Amino acid sequence: MAEPAPKPATCAPTKCSTCPIKNSCSTASKGGQSDPDILQIREKMSTIKHKIIVLSGKGGVGKSTVAAQLAITLAARGKEVGIMDVDICGPSIPRMLGCEGEDVHTAGEELIPVYVKDNLAVISIGFMLQNKDDAVIWRGPRKNSLIKSFLNEVKWDNLDFLIVDTPPGTSDEHISLVQYLSESQPDGAVIVTTPQEVALMDVRKEINFCHKTSLPIIGVIENMSYFECPCCHTQMPMFEASTGGALKMCTDMNVPLLGIIPMDPRIASACDNGKSIIETTEGSVAAQKLNEIVDELLRKAELNIEKQASQQAPASADTQQKESKSADAGSS
Amino acid sequence: MAEPAPKPATCAPTKCSTCPIKNSCSTASKGGQSDPDILQIREKMSTIKHKIIVLSGKGGVGKSTVAAQLAITLAARGKEVGIMDVDICGPSIPRMLGCEGEDVHTAGEELIPVYVKDNLAVISIGFMLQNKDDAVIWRGPRKNSLIKSFLNEVKWDNLDFLIVDTPPGTSDEHISLVQYLSESQPDGAVIVTTPQEVALMDVRKEINFCHKTSLPIIGVIENMSYFECPCCHTQMPMFEASTGGALKMCTDMNVPLLGIIPMDPRIASACDNGKSIIETTEGSVAAQKLNEIVDELLRKAELNIEKQASQQAPASADTQQKESKSADAGSS
Repeated sequence: MAEPAPKPATCAPTKCSTCPIKNSCSTASKGGQSDPDILQIREKMSTIKHKIIVLSGKGGVGKSTVAAQLAITLAARGKEVGIMDVDICGPSIPRMLGCEGEDVHTAGEELIPVYVKDNLAVISIGFMLQNKDDAVIWRGPRKNSLIKSFLNEVKWDNLDFLIVDTPPGTSDEHISLVQYLSESQPDGAVIVTTPQEVALMDVRKEINFCHKTSLPIIGVIENMSYFECPCCHTQMPMFEASTGGALKMCTDMNVPLLGIIPMDPRIASACDNGKSIIETTEGSVAAQKLNEIVDELLRKAELNIEKQASQQAPASADTQQKESKSADAGSS
Repeated sequence: MAEPAPKPATCAPTKCSTCPIKNSCSTASKGGQSDPDILQIREKMSTIKHKIIVLSGKGGVGKSTVAAQLAITLAARGKEVGIMDVDICGPSIPRMLGCEGEDVHTAGEELIPVYVKDNLAVISIGFMLQNKDDAVIWRGPRKNSLIKSFLNEVKWDNLDFLIVDTPPGTSDEHISLVQYLSESQPDGAVIVTTPQEVALMDVRKEINFCHKTSLPIIGVIENMSYFECPCCHTQMPMFEASTGGALKMCTDMNVPLLGIIPMDPRIASACDNGKSIIETTEGSVAAQKLNEIVDELLRKAELNIEKQASQQAPASADTQQKESKSADAGSS
């Protein structure tokens, strides 16, 4: 029996399409590169300029809050925005965007997302439950299938940004998402944490997940960094950075720190009521920091487009050169 | 072809063993009641008096903190305690119990948990990673298999309490855990939440998960209920109970509220450093509330034993009566 081909050092399912041993390697066959859905998802995603996945190893650090507020803020800046909630067992995006209880409609084979504003659309399993308190008691394969549908069947039209909110961890939802988007050039991951070590521990794992799956890391946001008492203005670390917080972790792991958001009780209230933090806490440090993070995100998104264009340009030139040589060879 | 038997109204895998149509129903065959591992787990669990599963629909509400502190406090009260960390992608229990970096050893086919104290043992995938920052990129079946091993192969000896810490959600880990313990009479679930609606939303789903899987609910703990500034003593709701908090939810859903723990920055520090909250914040409201919760838990555990004994007593009497009748019939 023939020996299976050894895996290259950079082995990851997302790299299979360009791998020289893809035809003989088990990763490629498992990686689903031959899955026609992945190609269909690529087609679907081609009308979306930027695809950002919001991740965190740990729950409760403000992942959905960040995802919802990035979407709201980008939309407030005039961008066309979609938000996809793949936290299937705990979908909180509908509540955080003030559209709980809405229905998802279908048009032919497509799902029509719920529009919160003209330029802000949402898809979530939260819209599909008979009763909003129903538990979604699903194992991995069923969750993966819904994620595939969300990527493949939602009628987003042209978007500037698609923000994907995920559950905590590095399991089915995350593996499937990265695999299904492997041909769709996602911009990368925004990783959310709090300053305490028990959160950073899980976030380091999430960063390593990104490295292993070749998902670029846009940057880390440290949430609930400190709290300033509105009465006596004493600043307190609610989740003490006993090991140096996100700044040290980002330095150690060589990933960018996108920004730091302090704790503000008005943030939880805004989320419960589907409001914009920037509007409800106008003038607050949290609002200012969130605005700065969105500025940085827009700058990076712009850079990403330039980078992709420059990568495509030499490739096209190279292809043209090859085609020209091939034509020369053919005519000789 | 014969029609499959209709499912009874109370259909749940945990009820299969006593269901009259278990031989013809698909739930029973899928429920794993014939799985010899479940019977082996029952045998393994028979030396553990109380099995408590700590759940929460939402991450970051303090599930692992509560699990770790319940274990520490019960051990401090002289109980024999084990803690099993089934948050496979984000295991934080080793850090929270100050035993990160320890190794799990084997004795024959059994796994020897890590002993933090003579009467406090821990099992977690955290002890099994080559590098503590390694991401555990596992889909459901692999996670389920590890949970089965943890339940089946850990040498706990006789325990008063086994506390099981879970990841957020109602998916593979939770379904498997309830299924594998279906013959082992777990005491039930302690459900942790914060007061804000986006947490309660997910917790309602978790309560419905417990109802659907027939897992008893011991009670709900509301964590991070409010914060009292140590300087000016102003009390602030950090995660405002915009819909009435855990108290209203418990009343609405007819489940007991075990207690309320306020936010205290020293709690996060204690967790980062593997310390007891009760010891490090001695005299604090948080320490007092945690002590009260443990009192209540012990009271309920005692009641549970009495209830089980009284259920078994009439059953035994009934069996004896039947046996006696049968003997009478045989001799007539």
